[in-house]
Parts: sequence; structure tokens; C-alpha cells
Amino acid sequence: MPIAVDTMGGDSPLLVQVEAAVRAVNDFGIEVVLVGAFEQIEETLKLHNYDSDKLRIVNSTETVEMNESPASALRQKKHSSIRVAVDLVKDGEAEAVVSAGNTGASMATAKFVLKSIEGIERPAIASIMPSVHRNHPFVLLDAGANTDCKPLYLFQFALMGDAYARTYLHLDNPRVALLNNGEEEGKGYVELKETYDLLKQSKLNFVGNIEGKAMFRDKVNVVVCDGFVGNIALKVAEGTFDFVSSILREEVNNSLLSKFGYLAMKGPFKALRQRADYSEVGGASLLGINGIVIICHGNSKVHTFRNAIKHAQECVDLELNDKIAGEVSENLEVINQAKILNGGE
Amino acid sequence: MPIAVDTMGGDSPLLVQVEAAVRAVNDFGIEVVLVGAFEQIEETLKLHNYDSDKLRIVNSTETVEMNESPASALRQKKHSSIRVAVDLVKDGEAEAVVSAGNTGASMATAKFVLKSIEGIERPAIASIMPSVHRNHPFVLLDAGANTDCKPLYLFQFALMGDAYARTYLHLDNPRVALLNNGEEEGKGYVELKETYDLLKQSKLNFVGNIEGKAMFRDKVNVVVCDGFVGNIALKVAEGTFDFVSSILREEVNNSLLSKFGYLAMKGPFKALRQRADYSEVGGASLLGINGIVIICHGNSKVHTFRNAIKHAQECVDLELNDKIAGEVSENLEVINQAKILNGGE
Repeated sequence: MPIAVDTMGGDSPLLVQVEAAVRAVNDFGIEVVLVGAFEQIEETLKLHNYDSDKLRIVNSTETVEMNESPASALRQKKHSSIRVAVDLVKDGEAEAVVSAGNTGASMATAKFVLKSIEGIERPAIASIMPSVHRNHPFVLLDAGANTDCKPLYLFQFALMGDAYARTYLHLDNPRVALLNNGEEEGKGYVELKETYDLLKQSKLNFVGNIEGKAMFRDKVNVVVCDGFVGNIALKVAEGTFDFVSSILREEVNNSLLSKFGYLAMKGPFKALRQRADYSEVGGASLLGINGIVIICHGNSKVHTFRNAIKHAQECVDLELNDKIAGEVSENLEVINQAKILNGGE
Repeated sequence: MPIAVDTMGGDSPLLVQVEAAVRAVNDFGIEVVLVGAFEQIEETLKLHNYDSDKLRIVNSTETVEMNESPASALRQKKHSSIRVAVDLVKDGEAEAVVSAGNTGASMATAKFVLKSIEGIERPAIASIMPSVHRNHPFVLLDAGANTDCKPLYLFQFALMGDAYARTYLHLDNPRVALLNNGEEEGKGYVELKETYDLLKQSKLNFVGNIEGKAMFRDKVNVVVCDGFVGNIALKVAEGTFDFVSSILREEVNNSLLSKFGYLAMKGPFKALRQRADYSEVGGASLLGINGIVIICHGNSKVHTFRNAIKHAQECVDLELNDKIAGEVSENLEVINQAKILNGGE
């Protein structure tokens, strides 16, 4: 079954998405449905060669703007590209959605139309993050979907992160940790302490709290936090990276020797950028939905967006959602306890 | 009046602190009281030349261990070096305390003995952070003192951060921002939205929300957050910095050319480390206490610890605490409103 690609949104709507889809078809043999303005897509496709059995177009007549509120997009734009793409999954005509459009609207639409996996209260965005070990990335979730999180939700994030690490990262027994302001048990605010207790009782390989500094050191495979903290962590990491680049560029100009050194280090700097950024993964997964949903940065280039389509196909092939459902059933006792703790949600 | 220096704690207790104190006396003419084991300090001082009018010793008989709980330290060690140092401030024999000891114990002792400045509910740790502009650092607070924060506390952090930026950073009208998961008004959890409203009504130059990525870009002077988020932000920034260093070191070894480039870039890398780290500031301020309290990293070297003593003296000379008290009176109306919001604390 094909992957539905929302061709709207992002910095270069249509052009990037269509070329990326063509490359996903040609490079990996993935089947794709392009969703958007039919004629424009058809026009753009003329520039490319591809196996036409694997690529079709489904028309949509509206577009969710990047600054539009998710609620209004959901209510008022039932023919938007993201809505039509998600509907394809609901109707069993596609297995996954990939979008670089308005993230809030994509999440809201997926949650509303496809609903959560049974036993999951709140879907979460999982971001694949680099560690100092070239081949050992880790999963951070929630990277921004839920600002306020009860222990029940955080516990479910841990289950989903574990399933993601077992399938997508091919790990046998992922080390799961809670992002906290200290390693000792009892750290953090009350919801974190309660989540810690739930995780200790679970079937997960819970290794305790981890600090923001240590998480890049290849010590854990899954880092759990609420979406507010996840957003701060990701953005501070990006900001620090930009800070370092900016200072080095400035300081290099102070001497000819260091200008030369900078050129001679082109290789390592390029490798650093590749190892730090998301382009090989292509996008973040919205986990916990009945269907695979991959959210891409608005500034994604063709290579990145193509990889996001591949990422979606892999999650389908690896039966990620069955794994999540399995983790929920294995930990039902702890989930029920968390529900009592939360006043019976 | 002198600065009280806790000679215990840190990675090299006594040696670092005593030498740093001698240098603060010799380099800046600051008066210092060294607090700790009298005979050991006396012995160590024999290695140095200094103006003995400006340096005296006060004996203490106990030491708070680095892993001791703040509550037990406070209850059971009334003759610890930190307690004796703080008592000196209380008794009007010193104006400030500098310590590289157990941070939690130092904070708890200072709060318990010296009490908060009138109108400040919760003291906060203010950290001076670098921006991309060499001469424009910014203040981030709370960097870790308070895990849970009501809008009232966050608002008071903003007042203290503003006073700190006006005095210590010599700014006329600091731009104050709230660390949040988006720039738009209405972002974040409910306490942040309420804090946003309080800040809008205040006499501060409130510029709105700032994201974790943008705060390093020399856009704002004071960044307000709760101590949990502050801890995560600082640690993630450190972790990202370490990540970058570690990857570059690894990648450089892949070719002779880049090894040479690395050597040729020694200058810029050194400048980057200097601009990124805290050693010129020497330590973080615990703001909101009746007395100046500077908290140093446990791994502080002599240069850093000396600068922390200078930092303390500057805060005294700049009458930082009068400025904080002034900001409280100027914004009493908003504070009272916040108290009603919080159920009358």
C-alpha cells in the first residue's frame, strides 16, 4: 500500500515534495500518492522520469497555511492536502502520511481523523537524536506535541519510545531514561517522581534519570520528557550548535593561519554537520496514531524529504504500531495504576 | 567589609580557594575572610605573599560533603564552613559569601540564615550566558534553585534578573523575555501564560517569549524560566558543546590535512572555549537573599574562583540588592495581583 505525501507546506511547496517522491520511487521502489493541486503536480511530474505504476496523484483543493491555527484548519479546511492525505490512510488507501506543512495542523488532523492507538492517551513526537557514537542515535520524546503531561502520558511515551527503538533502531533491549535535573531517584517535580515509580515497575529496561548533558554520550537509547521540555532541549541544542558555528566563523577571520586551518578542516566540519542533523532520518514520527505519520521540518530539502518517505515505509514494514500495541498490553497493570493516580482518566 | 570565602568543597578544597583568595587580594585589593580549618589554611597561606591586613581566617570545624542532603547539612552541621561563612554575613562581619561546595546546602543555608529580600518569595540562581556577540552576555534565571514555579515566583525572577542586568551587566533598559516553546503570546503551560500577562503589566522592558534556539543570538538580556527548565537548558547546551568537540576530535583523525587544520585553528578553538565558558564570571549568583551569595562549580580552578570573589565584590559595590528591592517596590501592584492569582501566598 502506498505512502501519502502532502505536497503543500514547507519552504518550497510542491517542488521539493514531488521531486522527493520521485526519488523515493526510483531509489527505493516505494509506492507514493501525491496529494495536492492535481494539475500543478502533473505539470511538475513532467520534469521527471519514474515508474508510473508506483506514483499517482490525488487532488486536494485547499491548503493549510504555515501560521494557521490547527483548530481552524481542522474545522474549516476539509479539503486541504493534509486532510485528504490523512483520509487516505483512514480509508485504507495509504498506510502512512508524510508532511512538511503546518506541524500543529498535521498533528491535530491525524489525531482527529485516525484516533490514537488503543491504550495511548496522547500521541507524541519522537525525534531521532545523534550521540557521540556514529551508529548509536537515541530517541527523544515528546519533542513538542504535548505541553502538559501527566505521569500516565509520560509512561506511555516511554512505551512508544521503546517500541520505536526496538523496531526503527533495531535494538533488542533499549535503555529507557527520564530526562531530569539530576540522576538520583527523587529528582524533579512531582509528575516526574511518579513517572519514575511507574517506569520502575514496568517491563521496560528503565535505567533511571538522565541529565541534559549526559544524553548525548551514548548512555541511553530512549529519553522521555514532556513536550515543553523536549522543545526546549531540541532548540537549545540547535542554538548551541549555531552559536559554536558562528563564533568559529568569526574567530577564524582573525588570522591567515586559522583561515587556512578552517579550509583544511572542511572534511571534519562537514562530517559534524551530517552527524548532527536530521536529514538522514528525514523527519520526526508522530507516535501513537492509528497510522504512520512523519512530520518534516518546513525547510526540508529533497534529500531529507525523500528520506522521510523512506522512514515512513520502514515504520510500516517494521509494524511499529503493532509493537506499540504490544507494549501497551504487556504493561497494562502499570497503565491502570497510572490511571488511578491521575484520577481515573 | 570583606567577602567570606568557604574554603571547603570543590575538587581541590582549600588549595584552590586559598590561592584564589590571595590573588583576589593581590590583584584587586579585595578584603577576604577565609573560612575553614584554621591551621590548614594558615599552613597553605605560608606558600603565598599577600597584604595580611586584607586577609584573615575564621575557623570552622565541620565540612558539608558534596553528596550530603541540604536539609541534613543545615540541621546537623552548624559549624560547617558554609554555615560559618553565611553567619559572618548575618552578623555584619562580611558582605558576601563565595562557595564551591555542595550547591544545595549553600542555597539552603543562605536562605535559612539570611532570609529572602522582602517581597521575594524564592531566591533564584542567575547564570551569565554567552551570546554570539562577544560583549553581550545575557542572564538566565532560574538556573536550578526552584523546580516548581508559580507565576509569582517567575515574575520575581524577572525583576531580579532585570536588576542584575542593570547593575552587573551595566544595561540601561534590559530586554526581558520568557523562555517558551514558541514566540507567540499564549504559548506554553498555564503558569507561563499567566507570567506573560504579569510581565506585560510590569514596568519591565518585557519583549515577550523567546525560544531556546534564539536566546544565544543577542536578542535579549534576561531570560526567565523555572529552575527545572533552566537546568535542562544549561545542561543541554553543555552537552551539545561536548558533542561538537568530541565529534570534531574524532573526525580530525581521519586525514593528515585536517589534523594540520586542527592545529592551525588552535586560536579560534581556544577563543570559542573562552567565550563559551563561565570562568571570567567565576560563578552564578543566588539572587534574592539578604546578602550576596556566589555559587561556583565544584571543578572551578584558581582563576575562576578568583573571578567569583571579584564578582561578589562587584555585586556589593553595585548595590545589587538595593536595586532588587527597588524593583520590587516599583512593581508592587503586579506582585499583589500575582499573589491573588496564586491564592494569596
